[in-house]
Amino acid sequence: MKTNVYQQQLAHGLGIVSKAVAARSTLPVLSNVLLATDDGRLRLSATNLEVGITCWIGAQIIEDGSITVPARTLADLVSTLPGDTVSLDLNTQTQTLNVKCGSSSTDIKGLDAQEFPPMPVPELDDAVELNVADFREMIQQVAFCASNDDARPALQGVSVTLSGNTITMAATDGFRISVRKSSLSTPVPQTLSAIIPARAMIELSRIAGDSGDVVKMVIPQGRGQVIFHLPDVELASQLIDANFPDYKLIIPQSYKTRTILPTSALLKACRQAEVIARDSNNVIRLEIINNENEPGRVEVQATSEETGASEIILDASVDGPALPIAFNVRFLREVLDVIKTPNVVIETTSNNSPGVIRPVNDDSFLHVIMPMHLG
Amino acid sequence: MKTNVYQQQLAHGLGIVSKAVAARSTLPVLSNVLLATDDGRLRLSATNLEVGITCWIGAQIIEDGSITVPARTLADLVSTLPGDTVSLDLNTQTQTLNVKCGSSSTDIKGLDAQEFPPMPVPELDDAVELNVADFREMIQQVAFCASNDDARPALQGVSVTLSGNTITMAATDGFRISVRKSSLSTPVPQTLSAIIPARAMIELSRIAGDSGDVVKMVIPQGRGQVIFHLPDVELASQLIDANFPDYKLIIPQSYKTRTILPTSALLKACRQAEVIARDSNNVIRLEIINNENEPGRVEVQATSEETGASEIILDASVDGPALPIAFNVRFLREVLDVIKTPNVVIETTSNNSPGVIRPVNDDSFLHVIMPMHLG
Repeated sequence: MKTNVYQQQLAHGLGIVSKAVAARSTLPVLSNVLLATDDGRLRLSATNLEVGITCWIGAQIIEDGSITVPARTLADLVSTLPGDTVSLDLNTQTQTLNVKCGSSSTDIKGLDAQEFPPMPVPELDDAVELNVADFREMIQQVAFCASNDDARPALQGVSVTLSGNTITMAATDGFRISVRKSSLSTPVPQTLSAIIPARAMIELSRIAGDSGDVVKMVIPQGRGQVIFHLPDVELASQLIDANFPDYKLIIPQSYKTRTILPTSALLKACRQAEVIARDSNNVIRLEIINNENEPGRVEVQATSEETGASEIILDASVDGPALPIAFNVRFLREVLDVIKTPNVVIETTSNNSPGVIRPVNDDSFLHVIMPMHLG
Repeated sequence: MKTNVYQQQLAHGLGIVSKAVAARSTLPVLSNVLLATDDGRLRLSATNLEVGITCWIGAQIIEDGSITVPARTLADLVSTLPGDTVSLDLNTQTQTLNVKCGSSSTDIKGLDAQEFPPMPVPELDDAVELNVADFREMIQQVAFCASNDDARPALQGVSVTLSGNTITMAATDGFRISVRKSSLSTPVPQTLSAIIPARAMIELSRIAGDSGDVVKMVIPQGRGQVIFHLPDVELASQLIDANFPDYKLIIPQSYKTRTILPTSALLKACRQAEVIARDSNNVIRLEIINNENEPGRVEVQATSEETGASEIILDASVDGPALPIAFNVRFLREVLDVIKTPNVVIETTSNNSPGVIRPVNDDSFLHVIMPMHLG
């Protein structure tokens, strides 16, 4: 292999694929990045066997070939090089890659490209096309709810369901649920469901930011994989083989009190109350007040035996009976962080039944939080 | 105590003093920040018994008083408040500080101000005046050489010597030495020496950045302390009671080869070589070449059994016999990072005697590095 590439493009490509490099692996080749000439471009791939990322960059190919080299060594080296042409030249006998730029020349010892796990190639004819901006927002609004608990693999994923012309994403950690719907430009012929690791989705939303307008999703039959295709990047992930909880059963179908608040004011109040609440299990109490002949309000309260107490009073439009209800302040803050509308609705029934949080005038998103025990 | 302050000023002041808050202490009051009305201003103090920082901010004082409250709770709370007036109101019976801003009200449980260690008050008549910009540069060029080794307390400090109209700072970790001199606007009546903890100096250079043009230094007789005074801030530090090594004996008085290189090119070469060298004890080899009838050059080489090899060739002006010499690449990079002149001199005698690094045409700074064993 002998090829010339621009330093910026190589650095950018390595930045994208390096997120899939195995942090600690018993298989040395998984710490490496694959470099392979591919139809006039240079292909970079990395995989930790759960998620694999491939990125193509423009290159002047002088001689075809492929090699894997330690990802961190190559990325760190390239980041120190000037913004100039970098020559990559493989000595196939020693499996050593020479990286030359200006007066600097570095030999990096590699491992045979044959040892690198093959990356899946998607059949793009069967792909579902998704708008990148929508797709990133969906991931942002849902993936943070996934669990980190290794004992419950289904909850570590995002449930993705395609049906008719609707795509639905949902995630839950057992204490809260986020559900977001969006429209597909072309309806799918048959309903399709999969659980994709939340980590892969978050990585995808990071990559998709600066790569085209459309992402194509392919779930090949019976392979337990999903592949996302962008113009110069592909991300493949193992699916989670488990049953996702039937979250629709948990979403309350009715409410008694409907409270509308400015999103940013409630978010700020949560941040203030969290300073006290973090010393007492993150509990905050929302005192929803609805007296006749006076405007509604919500008192956001936190109390810690050790640290003190905090109260923030917010004007609110309250429809229905007053009630106190306690939530985990971090959960409330995290959902408010991803709601973009100026106002937010909290639907409540009693202090021991789940609350529903929705953007005002936007039916595409809803969030359910289990209440905490009132102190 | 009852006082009104601006949120920005309070947040700024808490940011300055919080660096002196004890991270883990058996004495709870050391996790706290002292708030005390002081002659029409509000005084904030924190100390970990080694370093103490006091900061004064403008305040509308309604009632004098003082209290200590958990520094992290107060700082985090204030950072969430809007940029508005914050009212601080102490309930002396419960030792609880009420922090009010807009519709938000928080009670923070405090500890009696009497429990807080007294902060030293400097006699500013005896102060040595130093230019802040010079002083910060001195600290930056010297303090990074101090050791982290608890077993050798003298090496954890910066030696500061005042003599005539010269101030000299030096630090060493046993493998390298940085020495920087500067002029005093007013000569000192008698020579004065002290070892100040490097951590305190680095903290001071951070604080001094945005506070006035002159810093006053006071070393009160027999108290084992130094106090630095800025218009709105004071930092007091314990001195290190130990003998600083007589570094003048180690600074080479002559050299055989004098090599001049562009500072930034050598720094970049070090960064490139470090990617390989970090896998082999950080050793890089400088091959200083001086052949007749051709321009001088330096080859920066790194080799790692595991990772590979790197070579960068730099044009240089070499005066004296050629030689190879090995250095710790991190040490070389760190000193090049603080040299501001476009060109740098490396003075060498042999591959097993110390090298001297100096800025070209600037006698105020010098750096000595012990060579490593040539591979």
